Amino acid sequence: MDTINSYIENNKERFVNELIELLKIPSISADSAFKNDVLKTAEIIKVSLENAGCEAVEICKTDGYPIVYGEKIIDKNLPTVLVYGHYDVQPPDPLELWNSAPFEPIIEKTELHPEGAIFARGACDDKGQMYMHVKALEFMTSTHQLPCNVKFMIEGEEEVGSANLATFVKNNKEKLQNDVILISDTGMIAKDVPSITTGLRGLSYVEVEVTGPNRDLHSGLYGGAVANPINILSKMIASLHDENNHITIPGFYNKVENLSEEERAEMAKAPFNLDAYKKALDISDVYGEKGYTTNERNSIRPTLDVNGIWGGYTGEGAKTVIASKAYAKISMRLVPHQDWEEITQLFKTHFESIAPDAVKVKVSPHHGGQGYVTPIDSIGYKAASKAYKQTFGKTPIPQRSGGSIPIVSLFEKELKSKTILMGFGLDSDAIHSPNEHFGIWNYLKGIETIPYFYKYFTELSK
Amino acid sequence: MDTINSYIENNKERFVNELIELLKIPSISADSAFKNDVLKTAEIIKVSLENAGCEAVEICKTDGYPIVYGEKIIDKNLPTVLVYGHYDVQPPDPLELWNSAPFEPIIEKTELHPEGAIFARGACDDKGQMYMHVKALEFMTSTHQLPCNVKFMIEGEEEVGSANLATFVKNNKEKLQNDVILISDTGMIAKDVPSITTGLRGLSYVEVEVTGPNRDLHSGLYGGAVANPINILSKMIASLHDENNHITIPGFYNKVENLSEEERAEMAKAPFNLDAYKKALDISDVYGEKGYTTNERNSIRPTLDVNGIWGGYTGEGAKTVIASKAYAKISMRLVPHQDWEEITQLFKTHFESIAPDAVKVKVSPHHGGQGYVTPIDSIGYKAASKAYKQTFGKTPIPQRSGGSIPIVSLFEKELKSKTILMGFGLDSDAIHSPNEHFGIWNYLKGIETIPYFYKYFTELSK
Repeated sequence: MDTINSYIENNKERFVNELIELLKIPSISADSAFKNDVLKTAEIIKVSLENAGCEAVEICKTDGYPIVYGEKIIDKNLPTVLVYGHYDVQPPDPLELWNSAPFEPIIEKTELHPEGAIFARGACDDKGQMYMHVKALEFMTSTHQLPCNVKFMIEGEEEVGSANLATFVKNNKEKLQNDVILISDTGMIAKDVPSITTGLRGLSYVEVEVTGPNRDLHSGLYGGAVANPINILSKMIASLHDENNHITIPGFYNKVENLSEEERAEMAKAPFNLDAYKKALDISDVYGEKGYTTNERNSIRPTLDVNGIWGGYTGEGAKTVIASKAYAKISMRLVPHQDWEEITQLFKTHFESIAPDAVKVKVSPHHGGQGYVTPIDSIGYKAASKAYKQTFGKTPIPQRSGGSIPIVSLFEKELKSKTILMGFGLDSDAIHSPNEHFGIWNYLKGIETIPYFYKYFTELSK
Repeated sequence: MDTINSYIENNKERFVNELIELLKIPSISADSAFKNDVLKTAEIIKVSLENAGCEAVEICKTDGYPIVYGEKIIDKNLPTVLVYGHYDVQPPDPLELWNSAPFEPIIEKTELHPEGAIFARGACDDKGQMYMHVKALEFMTSTHQLPCNVKFMIEGEEEVGSANLATFVKNNKEKLQNDVILISDTGMIAKDVPSITTGLRGLSYVEVEVTGPNRDLHSGLYGGAVANPINILSKMIASLHDENNHITIPGFYNKVENLSEEERAEMAKAPFNLDAYKKALDISDVYGEKGYTTNERNSIRPTLDVNGIWGGYTGEGAKTVIASKAYAKISMRLVPHQDWEEITQLFKTHFESIAPDAVKVKVSPHHGGQGYVTPIDSIGYKAASKAYKQTFGKTPIPQRSGGSIPIVSLFEKELKSKTILMGFGLDSDAIHSPNEHFGIWNYLKGIETIPYFYKYFTELSK
């Protein structure tokens, strides 16, 4: 693998330009208006896998967006790595907060990225991190250094809950058979503090609709006499947390994993500067569940957040109206052992139960997924740890992430193999936000580190 | 005046068609995109006043939309009636709930309107009711039966708070000098239950903005650790009412007029069917301040309603984001003696005080106006009462309305004259709502009744 650095040096411009071309396509899976762009992206992934040395590359149809599959089998007796990633991206809005067009990638130097960062929706999540694996494979095949078998499975529905991936995995267990699953869709603590994500939160995402009168009403003639669905929805949302910011849904915490004081003390060792955190977000204070630190609140504790709310007149000026309906999108982040379908049902039952007779309430589950924890004594984790040590010169820190990659627990259930989350992004990359970006240094560092994972995983598997 | 019926019979088709032409112009004062339409409407009002026999008709410039003024002075020794109305309309959204285009008027028969009703934004509020006065004047001038002097003042900013009317009135007191002000911008209890509005609620309309983090955040990485502005805004809105639906803003009720048991008993005599009310709105229950009836809640009691709320991702599908900002438009209906500017300040102070340190809050007052009560022993009220008796065969019932016409109290302050609110619309006309309409019977009944007001007011003034 020692030629990786020179290979990157000679090809880095092309690596960046190829990613930029990929980022130009608005593959927004949440919005059907972009259907053709999502499909076009799948085609480009297929070609890029073939160019990187994959064989039997195919675009696998699903009931939704297709899954691109490819493999390079060099010896059935050698271990097999299954790489997962996604080619779809989050919607870019609010557009007015972007400093450049989300699908016209630009390279800009920042304080954290003096080498420059690529600004575009999907730069980090997940086109950039997924493409590192394609380029790492290109290096290993073109220099005849691929030490084991590899399979790629790149989907187009991760940002909308991977609705059709489960069926695909269930129906293709043999094809997907592997010894370890490798994913880069998470972050690391800092450029000089490599880390491996060992825990993920689960997710339950629902949409609620509150209906008051059967039509919009004049707030003067009816105000005070009928239930205003926006006031009622606000009241219902407010009641979902108590004064200590504990979630009030009955049974919500029943299965929550409670970490030991030792584990919490271990977690507390991860470098964290609260003042810098507040400064970066321009907030005077953090806010969350009583009795837990900021790092605990966003990793080992479940949450309930309203992701969107709307109702009534939201245009310019004033309109004295009582809306007929009010809506909210609400998501709950779950911790290991909480079952997302059970939590979704608990939410539905509770939310419907707290609605006053004066309104009608509809709760529509969107999607969800289970939380996940990976052991740090597995071959996969050890191989990843050695790979980081090799390229960063430091042993990575195991960390829990607050994010969710629902399919990780699905993989374990269906494919009986562990997932290693080798993330190279930073919290400041603003994924899911305006001005998402990915440092070119991080991008190339990922391409440099990944081949070593293959090397050590093959060696440790012997 | 006895030729009014034959005059209407011979001209009713033209009366309807002229109104329909007026309704085709989207004079939405709240949305600057319709500026030219609002201005065009003022021109049309000018011409229609001239055609009806007004003299010295002019379009008076203001800092906002112009005020159309016209007069017909027959004898300085006779009393003068000042007619007020507005040519601007509410925004039509939500468009998808209209059965026909809001600015392509159609005539449809309904259960309440077997003679047909005109469906269009502004049909009742206020183009239709304002135009009744123009046609009534046309009748009186063309048949030489105008018994007194008349002045018209038709503005284009009523739906956005009449921002510039106050200045105009202050600067034109002599020109606007009158003995009584006549307005048709309210409703009556039923087609066979004529009523005159004797009380109006005041209004304070504000917009609030809650800012959490300085950018939209990934709800997985930050969820639970930072204040979510939508959750916080919901909490703050919910806290504005207590468990009895009393408003919790300190000092809010200090100046509220408390009616005597006698007055409340008198009010309770007005025909009202709660089951029919609930059925018409398709609600299982009414909802409001404890200790008051539905009719009291929407007339003699102040209210606080959210008229619009928005924040985060409101598009198709799901986005796991914590928004940087959340917004709401909130209006309070006030009762006589509550000062709208004082209430606006009380709201601002309180709303800012309940915000947690983790967010920033901005409260921007939109507009407002005072409540109003008119005595039923005035000449103006008596003249209106006799006019209804003449054309409906019944003495009208005095009633309090929950709506607000802020300028009424302004008129009394600046012009020292009382306002008579002769409304011919019905609650079911859906003003400010999709499918607003105005019964042709009501429209023509208004044109028939108004001349008698002039007759009796002149006689009673002698």
